[in-house]
Amino acid sequence: MVGIIMGSLSDRKVMQQAADALSELGIAYEMEIVSAHRTPERMLAYASNARSRGLKVIIAGAGGAAHLPGMVASLTSLPVIGVPVLSSNSIDGWDSVLSILQMPSGVPVATVALDGARNAGILAAQIIGATDSEVGKRLDLFKESLKEKVAAMNDELKNQLAN
Amino acid sequence: MVGIIMGSLSDRKVMQQAADALSELGIAYEMEIVSAHRTPERMLAYASNARSRGLKVIIAGAGGAAHLPGMVASLTSLPVIGVPVLSSNSIDGWDSVLSILQMPSGVPVATVALDGARNAGILAAQIIGATDSEVGKRLDLFKESLKEKVAAMNDELKNQLAN
Amino acid sequence: MVGIIMGSLSDRKVMQQAADALSELGIAYEMEIVSAHRTPERMLAYASNARSRGLKVIIAGAGGAAHLPGMVASLTSLPVIGVPVLSSNSIDGWDSVLSILQMPSGVPVATVALDGARNAGILAAQIIGATDSEVGKRLDLFKESLKEKVAAMNDELKNQLAN
Amino acid sequence: MVGIIMGSLSDRKVMQQAADALSELGIAYEMEIVSAHRTPERMLAYASNARSRGLKVIIAGAGGAAHLPGMVASLTSLPVIGVPVLSSNSIDGWDSVLSILQMPSGVPVATVALDGARNAGILAAQIIGATDSEVGKRLDLFKESLKEKVAAMNDELKNQLAN
Amino acid sequence: MVGIIMGSLSDRKVMQQAADALSELGIAYEMEIVSAHRTPERMLAYASNARSRGLKVIIAGAGGAAHLPGMVASLTSLPVIGVPVLSSNSIDGWDSVLSILQMPSGVPVATVALDGARNAGILAAQIIGATDSEVGKRLDLFKESLKEKVAAMNDELKNQLAN
Amino acid sequence: MVGIIMGSLSDRKVMQQAADALSELGIAYEMEIVSAHRTPERMLAYASNARSRGLKVIIAGAGGAAHLPGMVASLTSLPVIGVPVLSSNSIDGWDSVLSILQMPSGVPVATVALDGARNAGILAAQIIGATDSEVGKRLDLFKESLKEKVAAMNDELKNQLAN
Amino acid sequence: MVGIIMGSLSDRKVMQQAADALSELGIAYEMEIVSAHRTPERMLAYASNARSRGLKVIIAGAGGAAHLPGMVASLTSLPVIGVPVLSSNSIDGWDSVLSILQMPSGVPVATVALDGARNAGILAAQIIGATDSEVGKRLDLFKESLKEKVAAMNDELKNQLAN
Amino acid sequence: MVGIIMGSLSDRKVMQQAADALSELGIAYEMEIVSAHRTPERMLAYASNARSRGLKVIIAGAGGAAHLPGMVASLTSLPVIGVPVLSSNSIDGWDSVLSILQMPSGVPVATVALDGARNAGILAAQIIGATDSEVGKRLDLFKESLKEKVAAMNDELKNQLAN
Repeated sequence: MVGIIMGSLSDRKVMQQAADALSELGIAYEMEIVSAHRTPERMLAYASNARSRGLKVIIAGAGGAAHLPGMVASLTSLPVIGVPVLSSNSIDGWDSVLSILQMPSGVPVATVALDGARNAGILAAQIIGATDSEVGKRLDLFKESLKEKVAAMNDELKNQLAN
Repeated sequence: MVGIIMGSLSDRKVMQQAADALSELGIAYEMEIVSAHRTPERMLAYASNARSRGLKVIIAGAGGAAHLPGMVASLTSLPVIGVPVLSSNSIDGWDSVLSILQMPSGVPVATVALDGARNAGILAAQIIGATDSEVGKRLDLFKESLKEKVAAMNDELKNQLAN
Repeated sequence: MVGIIMGSLSDRKVMQQAADALSELGIAYEMEIVSAHRTPERMLAYASNARSRGLKVIIAGAGGAAHLPGMVASLTSLPVIGVPVLSSNSIDGWDSVLSILQMPSGVPVATVALDGARNAGILAAQIIGATDSEVGKRLDLFKESLKEKVAAMNDELKNQLAN
Repeated sequence: MVGIIMGSLSDRKVMQQAADALSELGIAYEMEIVSAHRTPERMLAYASNARSRGLKVIIAGAGGAAHLPGMVASLTSLPVIGVPVLSSNSIDGWDSVLSILQMPSGVPVATVALDGARNAGILAAQIIGATDSEVGKRLDLFKESLKEKVAAMNDELKNQLAN
Repeated sequence: MVGIIMGSLSDRKVMQQAADALSELGIAYEMEIVSAHRTPERMLAYASNARSRGLKVIIAGAGGAAHLPGMVASLTSLPVIGVPVLSSNSIDGWDSVLSILQMPSGVPVATVALDGARNAGILAAQIIGATDSEVGKRLDLFKESLKEKVAAMNDELKNQLAN
Repeated sequence: MVGIIMGSLSDRKVMQQAADALSELGIAYEMEIVSAHRTPERMLAYASNARSRGLKVIIAGAGGAAHLPGMVASLTSLPVIGVPVLSSNSIDGWDSVLSILQMPSGVPVATVALDGARNAGILAAQIIGATDSEVGKRLDLFKESLKEKVAAMNDELKNQLAN
Repeated sequence: MVGIIMGSLSDRKVMQQAADALSELGIAYEMEIVSAHRTPERMLAYASNARSRGLKVIIAGAGGAAHLPGMVASLTSLPVIGVPVLSSNSIDGWDSVLSILQMPSGVPVATVALDGARNAGILAAQIIGATDSEVGKRLDLFKESLKEKVAAMNDELKNQLAN
Repeated sequence: MVGIIMGSLSDRKVMQQAADALSELGIAYEMEIVSAHRTPERMLAYASNARSRGLKVIIAGAGGAAHLPGMVASLTSLPVIGVPVLSSNSIDGWDSVLSILQMPSGVPVATVALDGARNAGILAAQIIGATDSEVGKRLDLFKESLKEKVAAMNDELKNQLAN
């Protein structure tokens, strides 16, 4: 089970892509609104109980001064994946990227690209697939599907060039 | 009483300047190591009890993905001043500046310049001096002393130019 | 009484959010157009008389090479909150952020996020609430309302996921 | 077993910190020089065989136009952790950070802070500890040790302030 | 023959400008979808065989963590021109610019401006024209045509000012 | 007469280069410490009286949130040249560059390069030389001297290559 | 007479604002398309003859790798004002700002804000007004008009607040 | 024959690496001081005559507002390689990178990494080797030597780990 959390319902549009990737790869997930700045005690409870509740990975998305991923990582020894979300008054995304990525020694956050929630879902599957060979096989099939999509695009390009 | 907190003893060199400014202006302070990422429960306790313990302002310094000022601000309704500290593997200070400054709506942090701990101390005094006329007078005298320093530098420049 | 100033009527759309936050928290305010670059003498008069006129905090918003907050801070010992406004030919907001934040030693400006006028209003209330317990209580209630909004969003998310 | 790779022996000073963290946490590792740009075929072989050779996680460090982590991630379905290394002619580290972090959809890299190799080692242990409860316990102990270090620093600060 | 490659059909809108410039200058080209991250083996084959297949120059366009130009350059001794493409979740183009430009010593990529595919086509022609005097003459004529366009714009400006 | 002003004696090392350039070109100057933030009234007096005192150009150097050039420009209709000075806690000079360059419509500052005080002196001479043909001739001679220095460097290079 | 030049007719929308400011202040101007990169010989002729043709100031606008202002400054001893224009594939304007501002010692360009052509026109008038008292008076009146506009905006704000 | 030019003798330390790479690859070169800003007419003559003098490629290095590569490219139809040099008052190299890279449509510059003169030399050889099979072979051997260096580093690492 993967936990997907975000600070506001407005982040769902981006974060749903993590859920969709997990669904495609057959991994269960839950989704919650947990705000570092507006519900700090709730965040503490969520992160502290995550391992005992059976979560394997937590995906946390946040924008601006994005403290949710790092704070959750400070409260659990599970791997935490951080998704920098481009918020409305962001300075081009630099704020969320840097406040998730530049964690101090001792408390890592596995950071993905700006608005890269789909990759967060795939990475969570890869973490589970590191020891679960069934998930590993699904990921290898997924990699094959990427190649097929490129081959299909190349065929389409050849068609366009021929006409 | 002003609370000065920082995540590591290595931040003290910068943060002591806040304490020194408060001393010069006759404001009492306390100083503690409180780490958002390594002692999150201790941070929660410190911030939650700050008002009832009689603190008026909290000054929090942090570097890199600097979550301490914003997290403390989420846990108290006292004014929180954030000092972005240039840490050793910082990306030119942008990480600490942006992760302190760009707080979401509802949870402000009064941010000062990179390594601007002295100004944090002065700002804390100004906050107290907004309603304490005695402190206000000291701040007006302090402003006068700034003018005198410039006048003295100008005299020194004139001396240098004359020779 | 909190003074809200800005350099141009075009900044009002952003700066009104400071006024609205103060209204919600029951703090009186005034609002004026004061331009550092077009009416420097008027700015000098406004800032110099602010304390004697009974203001407790000044909120100043400006864009581009944003000098209004820092110049006002040089002319009064009241706490000054600076709001970097994203102006039309701004370089992504960096100009207003840096020219407000990076004040020299001796003259602090309490800087909030880009276009963060609502937080400037809340911060002004926190400054007053540092010594005014009635305002402090309102701020604690306001913090509770933030939690309730997150809880409501979480309920809405659960509804969406269930359907 | 965790694989630690880097493009040049000059990266070892930084990357050894990943190895040291793994050692402290009782996780086996191997270390190799594999260059995306100078030995692309060797990189292809290393990444393609990683899962069948029994690796669970790959940590890849690189500087400048840092392609090693992303290219390895394109060649294996194991989780890949990328460490942006500050190289000698880097533009302040932005090049390595962005060329590791901003991976396209489908091929995630778990990115850590600039020169954050120690956190890469801890993250690799967390990935293994997501399903290995013995490693999970060691990580919980490690988290306790972080708190103790902060407590010791606070005692030292109190000593310094008392004298 | 110039090879034009890109990671996705969505890059064609930009990359077609390279093809158009080559057409105008009478240079043959081919166009393929080759993805560093989704079809790494195909990329290896394409780049390794480029010289023996008779290509003289390769133009590679990519966005985000743009590894295609650099990886192709690691696999062939032909000159490789890199076009940073502004992708949808790019951080203002900095990611693609830096991950193409900042190649390590030994493996150059001739980088052009963000979305500068037309210039990539002209540069490819200049590379061929360095030793092919016929192409050199066409390029000199092309330079003359640029002057004529400026003269025509100046006439138009004079017309506008006169009316 | 050109006025050279700066906020602190510590800026003199950079700003003296403006004075030296003016001396070489036979233009009289004066030099003063005038601080926008510490002596705002003195700045107002200096700038307001500049034209009537016979100054033709003002060169103002400042670092960090550099308000001196823009504020002086708001108080006089003389041309004002701004020199961004790299101060000790500057964020790589971006703060002083942007807070001098990005002036709002109506109040220009002629900005030169970071620490470019020598160019500020030359530009002041060019402004005077726009209408003073004697100064114009000296500037043309100065341009010739630049060519001679390049020719001498080229001779030195040829010597080095021959040995 | 002020010369206004730009590299392309597409820059006219921005650069016309310089012409309009000069018209308002009663200063004659001419406008030409001169491209550093497409008509280098024409640029050389224009700049070399500028002083003898009676120009007092040159305003040059350019975008991207903006070489026109600096190259013109290398070819004349007249003051040259550079206007960084935000071009279509610019990286947020940084390219034009830096390639105009950061001129080497000996060859200054008076740089104004991004798209700040109106300020370029005002600065050109200030340069002429440094020695022409009639123009100086017009500039002082212009400064008064700025104050009146702020007063009018303040009245409008008071009206809005009263209703 | 490859032409290597730079604006100042102080750039030679960096630019010599281009010459050394060409020497290693058996390509003749010449080296000259040519300054865009101090000797514009000399630059015009050098670039205009380059093709007729038998040059195949020009490598131009420059720092700050680096106009030399782009201006040379405007004056010749030969391929021009630009080397951004980190100059003493550079803003972290961004100025030279952007003013070389972001050339307008019609006039490409093949840009290499900051201070990447060695890669400029290799790229010049690759351009010649695109049609000269003898040089192509030398470049393939050079690529092999890169692999051998990595293998040697890996052996050294294994030695270090074993001891």
